Amino acid sequence: MKSSGYALRLLLVFSIFVAFSICLISSADAQDSVMKQARANFSPLPTAMESADNPITPQKIRLGKMLFYDTRISVDRTVSCFKCHWINLYGTDGLQKAIGNHYKENPRNAPTVFNAAGEISEHWIGNRKSVEDQAKQALLGAGSYGLTSYEEAEANLKAIPGYDSLFAKAFPNDKNPVNADNFAMAIGAWERTLVTPSRFDAYLKGDSTALTAAEKEGLSTFMDLGCIQCHNGTYVGGGMYQEFGLTEPYWNLTHSQKIDEGRFAVTKDEADKYVFKVPVLRNVEMTSPYFHDGSVAELNKAVRIMAKLQLGKTITDKQAELLVTFLESLTGKISADALSVPILPPEN
Amino acid sequence: MKSSGYALRLLLVFSIFVAFSICLISSADAQDSVMKQARANFSPLPTAMESADNPITPQKIRLGKMLFYDTRISVDRTVSCFKCHWINLYGTDGLQKAIGNHYKENPRNAPTVFNAAGEISEHWIGNRKSVEDQAKQALLGAGSYGLTSYEEAEANLKAIPGYDSLFAKAFPNDKNPVNADNFAMAIGAWERTLVTPSRFDAYLKGDSTALTAAEKEGLSTFMDLGCIQCHNGTYVGGGMYQEFGLTEPYWNLTHSQKIDEGRFAVTKDEADKYVFKVPVLRNVEMTSPYFHDGSVAELNKAVRIMAKLQLGKTITDKQAELLVTFLESLTGKISADALSVPILPPEN
Repeated sequence: MKSSGYALRLLLVFSIFVAFSICLISSADAQDSVMKQARANFSPLPTAMESADNPITPQKIRLGKMLFYDTRISVDRTVSCFKCHWINLYGTDGLQKAIGNHYKENPRNAPTVFNAAGEISEHWIGNRKSVEDQAKQALLGAGSYGLTSYEEAEANLKAIPGYDSLFAKAFPNDKNPVNADNFAMAIGAWERTLVTPSRFDAYLKGDSTALTAAEKEGLSTFMDLGCIQCHNGTYVGGGMYQEFGLTEPYWNLTHSQKIDEGRFAVTKDEADKYVFKVPVLRNVEMTSPYFHDGSVAELNKAVRIMAKLQLGKTITDKQAELLVTFLESLTGKISADALSVPILPPEN
Repeated sequence: MKSSGYALRLLLVFSIFVAFSICLISSADAQDSVMKQARANFSPLPTAMESADNPITPQKIRLGKMLFYDTRISVDRTVSCFKCHWINLYGTDGLQKAIGNHYKENPRNAPTVFNAAGEISEHWIGNRKSVEDQAKQALLGAGSYGLTSYEEAEANLKAIPGYDSLFAKAFPNDKNPVNADNFAMAIGAWERTLVTPSRFDAYLKGDSTALTAAEKEGLSTFMDLGCIQCHNGTYVGGGMYQEFGLTEPYWNLTHSQKIDEGRFAVTKDEADKYVFKVPVLRNVEMTSPYFHDGSVAELNKAVRIMAKLQLGKTITDKQAELLVTFLESLTGKISADALSVPILPPEN
């Protein structure tokens, strides 16, 4: 009896050990499988968002950063890139819709400039090809700089003597470097450096401890629900266009004051009605309010609306919370250089 | 004859030596006398502009700097201190008159926030006692934040959860630290650190090589013409009120679109008609346009107008140039901390 009791106890201990090991292994397996799935759908940020069309140089960055802040180029001297893209609000302005020269309201919410250069296009409806194209078009934008011609922009730039040598250094092969194209190239070059690496990037690079258990569960939820159908790639979005409101009109849930037909305005193709560029979700915690019209201020509410409108799913409180937890892990680090404002050349 | 010729040559050499020495000594004397006169009229910047009413602490500075940038407290979410006081435009906005909420024009030009806390009062007509008073009054200013009550400001601050702990740390003895008074105290504490030491300070401390010969000649001109009657002290101004247009109405030369009665609006005393606070001239090169209404954009023109209106003197081109040369030596260094923008707490 004694020996049989001993054997029984041994068996029990062994069984517990085996069960525990299985749990550990399957948990590790689950973790591995989350990471594996994540690595199949996302990739870490590059150190800069390079472009063959506009090679990044220190001289362009220096000038571009100044121009980004310089209101004196705009029609009423109140608008610069910074007006709608506050670096310390993670590249946004906290408004539903951006406000430009003479207090003109823009048609849509100001998207962030961080990690933006890697997107397929800029703005919400794909009418800005690149960050350079965006910067150039902003000069003539009725709701942004409000200038009437690129010549006017050039004249305003030339009125600030200090820019002459800065443009010459940034564009050494140009005979007349102070012009709107180079304004755009310099700002673009600077914006191509605006990446915000986060713990999510460390995780994607293989550090499984970089995310907390709750964040991993959130990531898993994000992938399993189907959010990754659109929000994927390096930027967790920004790679495609998609109809907003696949299951029902978006304004049913966003209570938007005005119906925006989205990309239809660009292509005049019925299939593009209510189609918008899928926004980048990096730093989304920091860039309220949400959607193309800034109609929703709370991230928790925004994820519920997205699940319903795009996936036809009514998610639970727990799921919404997990999604938000994961999304918060996408908040990255703004470099000290990006957080430092450049002194602008005087006008005298 | 030989010996007499030798004696003559010796005498000649000696005379040249004496004459040269006298020149050197008198030049050194002149330099000493410029420095002596400068040190009698000006003094170097302190490391911070302390106030017994609002002791500077790292916690207040940290919070104050954030609040300085936060537009979300204002009525239309577009106004923060930074809107009119761009750190990278040396604390001004490059506009003739500042523009506040809903594009409302302010009555006067935005004065710089650099070296401002040391002035006798803030703004142009002495209706803001201190930087703290200015920050608090800005909340209700029709042309600034545009709020209707300090309670509204408090509610807007409380709507951003991240501020709770920051106010608690900055004001550890307050039971309800998130309020308009502490908003003002925190911003004031930060602004009290905004000093911009320049080569002029090094000169005042005794380094005679800190200014160039032309700058010293400009300084001498500045003192001899009589500019120092008003522009003196640590801040080269900011220490008194004075009528603008002592010899003839100011608008004769500034071509101001509107006549501003200045401090009369505060005191209703006839003697205060057209009286304004003497502005600080530190960094004046960087803070165009000039005067209470920003009516003059060029520094060279501004100094000629001042000489005529205040001293009744028509200065020469050479004198104007020398004055500008001296004034440019007042451009100081903005600290790396002041040039770094703080990330603002999210709203979610």
